[in-house]
Amino acid sequence: MSNRCFRRTGAGRVVQKLLIKAIMERNLISKGDRILIAVSGGKDSTVLAWALQQVRPALKIYYELEALHISSDFCACCKKSVLSQKLEAWGIPFTDLFVPIMGRLKPGENMNCYWCSTQRRTELLRYAVAHKFNQIALGHHLDDIIETFFMNMTAKGELSAMPMVLSYRKYPVRLIRPLGYVEEQQIVACAAEQDILHATCTCPYGIHSQRRDIRKRIAQFTGNSSAVKRRIFKALSDLLVHGEPQE
Amino acid sequence: MSNRCFRRTGAGRVVQKLLIKAIMERNLISKGDRILIAVSGGKDSTVLAWALQQVRPALKIYYELEALHISSDFCACCKKSVLSQKLEAWGIPFTDLFVPIMGRLKPGENMNCYWCSTQRRTELLRYAVAHKFNQIALGHHLDDIIETFFMNMTAKGELSAMPMVLSYRKYPVRLIRPLGYVEEQQIVACAAEQDILHATCTCPYGIHSQRRDIRKRIAQFTGNSSAVKRRIFKALSDLLVHGEPQE
Repeated sequence: MSNRCFRRTGAGRVVQKLLIKAIMERNLISKGDRILIAVSGGKDSTVLAWALQQVRPALKIYYELEALHISSDFCACCKKSVLSQKLEAWGIPFTDLFVPIMGRLKPGENMNCYWCSTQRRTELLRYAVAHKFNQIALGHHLDDIIETFFMNMTAKGELSAMPMVLSYRKYPVRLIRPLGYVEEQQIVACAAEQDILHATCTCPYGIHSQRRDIRKRIAQFTGNSSAVKRRIFKALSDLLVHGEPQE
Repeated sequence: MSNRCFRRTGAGRVVQKLLIKAIMERNLISKGDRILIAVSGGKDSTVLAWALQQVRPALKIYYELEALHISSDFCACCKKSVLSQKLEAWGIPFTDLFVPIMGRLKPGENMNCYWCSTQRRTELLRYAVAHKFNQIALGHHLDDIIETFFMNMTAKGELSAMPMVLSYRKYPVRLIRPLGYVEEQQIVACAAEQDILHATCTCPYGIHSQRRDIRKRIAQFTGNSSAVKRRIFKALSDLLVHGEPQE
């Protein structure tokens, strides 16, 4: 086996190993859970779906997996059919739900990332509750968590992070972020190795400028060192626990 | 009054205002306190001594002030006599204590910042207790607090900061950092305005490289923006309370 092959095969294993570690350490999944994976069409949530399916035998916990994709009137996922084929091949039932996100704007209101994500989150929660899922799995990774921490600190003056588990008072379902221990570059390597990249796309509006800016500044600050990022993540450990129950 | 004069007069007022705010909000000083100011010979602790004396009438709290300078066998404070004249002019009794910091090293041990600061801290505490001071005031400012937070996060993987008040189990004295709300650039402006800079010096070993490096990276990250630094400081607010009582 060439070095290249070895490296390529390794990336998926690394993601699976970190996923199992997060699930065990953070009690993310229990026997009998019905888990709805929110697949955006991007690499992160697609890798999450693949990995959650892959680790099932090793975990020895029986849980159900389904995937929900939210289509909208402003951002068509150009790779949706390839994505659905991938999910079918992995044995994960796939549903596509159309939400008129722009159509819901009141006259004079402008489209923005906050509005879009709030609409998607609400629909996701409603769908999960209506279909008796007790967990929703999101594709956020370690770099997303660190970015949000730095954004909250520098823009809001708050020490807070995206929790890896979040419960709601209003809904009998919780959010989990099983890729929380995985760095973005490890997800990219896994997606390349598992031939997932060609089945994914990103929002054409791209990363909005505030997040792109903080991402660049964090890269400068950490020197893009995995060791430094992991120490920052370790420092955030207590902030990742549950979070305040949300309405 | 020229603009220049106005600006110059303003720097000292800004420091006094922030000092009063910190004292009031953090309950740093009470009636009858005997406060020992640790004067290193640097600009920060000299400005602290000046400002603590200046704000006394406005605070309407009676407290005693004295200053202790620790001289050592490896780092002579070349401006000690000017410093003592300044303190005398401000009405603050001054003591110079010699500690053989290098002389205490065991054979084979090397001099370093950690050893020096531990030796100084121990002597400071002993002196304060022996002379019945109940508070020790240190000259750390807002930038020092932020730097320590980032160092603890990136090097130790801990979310912790230098508290503005620190109690000891072993000693009947507590440490306070009344300049915690003041930025370094505000201290520099005040020292220039009050003709303090010529009376101060810094350790010839300078800032050791790890702290210099983190300082540079924080400046890049915050774009040297006061607003961003103040939001970070606000985020740290809960970490600045008391801290764990130390042995």
